[in-house]
Amino acid sequence: MIAGIDIGGTTSKIGLVANGRVVRQLRIPTTGHADDHAFADALAEQVRTLARKHAEGPVKAVGIGAPNANQFTGIIEMAPNLPWKHDVPLARMLGDRLGVPAVLGNDANAAALGEWRYGAGQGIQDLLVVTIGTGVGSGFIVNGQLMLGSAGNAGELGHMTLVVDGRACTCGRKGCLEAYVSIRGMRQTYAELSDDLEVLKDEGVKCIADAAHQGDPAAVRTFEETVRWLAVGLANAVAVTGPRRVVLFGGIVRSGDLLMTPLKKRFNEALLNIHQGRVDLTTSALPDDDAALLGAAALTTI
Amino acid sequence: MIAGIDIGGTTSKIGLVANGRVVRQLRIPTTGHADDHAFADALAEQVRTLARKHAEGPVKAVGIGAPNANQFTGIIEMAPNLPWKHDVPLARMLGDRLGVPAVLGNDANAAALGEWRYGAGQGIQDLLVVTIGTGVGSGFIVNGQLMLGSAGNAGELGHMTLVVDGRACTCGRKGCLEAYVSIRGMRQTYAELSDDLEVLKDEGVKCIADAAHQGDPAAVRTFEETVRWLAVGLANAVAVTGPRRVVLFGGIVRSGDLLMTPLKKRFNEALLNIHQGRVDLTTSALPDDDAALLGAAALTTI
Repeated sequence: MIAGIDIGGTTSKIGLVANGRVVRQLRIPTTGHADDHAFADALAEQVRTLARKHAEGPVKAVGIGAPNANQFTGIIEMAPNLPWKHDVPLARMLGDRLGVPAVLGNDANAAALGEWRYGAGQGIQDLLVVTIGTGVGSGFIVNGQLMLGSAGNAGELGHMTLVVDGRACTCGRKGCLEAYVSIRGMRQTYAELSDDLEVLKDEGVKCIADAAHQGDPAAVRTFEETVRWLAVGLANAVAVTGPRRVVLFGGIVRSGDLLMTPLKKRFNEALLNIHQGRVDLTTSALPDDDAALLGAAALTTI
Repeated sequence: MIAGIDIGGTTSKIGLVANGRVVRQLRIPTTGHADDHAFADALAEQVRTLARKHAEGPVKAVGIGAPNANQFTGIIEMAPNLPWKHDVPLARMLGDRLGVPAVLGNDANAAALGEWRYGAGQGIQDLLVVTIGTGVGSGFIVNGQLMLGSAGNAGELGHMTLVVDGRACTCGRKGCLEAYVSIRGMRQTYAELSDDLEVLKDEGVKCIADAAHQGDPAAVRTFEETVRWLAVGLANAVAVTGPRRVVLFGGIVRSGDLLMTPLKKRFNEALLNIHQGRVDLTTSALPDDDAALLGAAALTTI
């Protein structure tokens, strides 16, 4: 029995994982706590509650996936989308509170581990998992190992520069893949293409997908542009690491006809000839609610 | 005693390697042979000659670095810069002729191995080696292993798209790093910037470097543009694999004041904040004539 925790910008999930399944899960807000210590107290309390009510045995370890997390240090480093701008040593903070080993990892690396162990990447020695949401995250399995890089911060495909001197990105640089392909990026593309921003009154990108289905030309074009940028970004990642399979994760990739169908074609066209036809492109095989927790739990076993 | 062979577009080098040093080497033309079998005959004959005259013991294995070589199959696959457009199973062809194990690898991977074992990458577990010449090649060491990818063709940084719908590349696609940063790319940049193409009558880029030193604004600008593209390309590679050190190899990188000095600054600026100050950028520590042979020989011991 392992506890998995997924720290998000607004909500954090806590779950119990056994035999590759999420036994039970709950959520707490990430925001509104007095400080990072109070947040760690709240997380630890929820783990204890879940364990008391639902665990068949003791919780042996805690795995935590979070944005800007460094797996080597166990520290969340200056995360722009979390309430704490300083370094938060969350692995140690939870390990101390619960008295079990705690491992912190980047949320996209956790997603990659989850897909690799339990989802669409099972049995693949060279895998790329890309999560598309508010931002764009990525985790790479290389030669049967999670690629962490020398400082524990490899796998930042979302911050690959696609357009020199392009759109401003939340990272402070310009032209990153994330500035074009994320929820934020797609909404900006729509805003640049349309005279009528009524469509954007709802959050997320479902509103743009709905508009595209109703024939709104700016919405159709937004998906076409997104597909174009994503195809190039994925092909660039393939040029570097040569994966056998690419798995996409996140709500956007459920827009099948608008995204995945044209993307498969554009992706293969964008590949270097020696990679063409040798790389699968597919979507996550895990339930949306479970993937991050399974991945977080998997961090404790690498 | 290992034989190392480096297959180039015009010249191929054959050398004897022992204890991390090139004991003896010679060259033969790559072109002008009746077919690929005649070329393999010529290579095998030179290995035998070298071994007879200079080897202190038997040649135990042959390592071959070549463009478009697939290490998994031992085949040179449709190399645009070699005389044979079909697949050439050179590992088997030389193994058969010499009666010893023969390993074929990508020339840039061989360079990376050479730098890692004997050069500027010694002791580094996560390393990127980029060779800049007619084209741009790259080899990545990830977590202490050469990254080959699922089909043996990882590490093609030269064919990362930097400009969507940009310059035509020899690979048939558009906007690749190689189309801007290689010898060919730099000459094209100069041709686009200058009204007087007299400077380009000499081959290579030394003529552009000389012109830059004499104050030719187009030549100065050519180096500035090259530095800008290379900085972004290297930062993109770092975003993916997170190396501790990047080693550049090739004649161009000897243009210290014009290339490496400004590049170090632009490279660090181009990095994502979490990578800044954590990645060394340096030049090869191996003699130009030996690096490819040492790397080719190192292919036999991974």
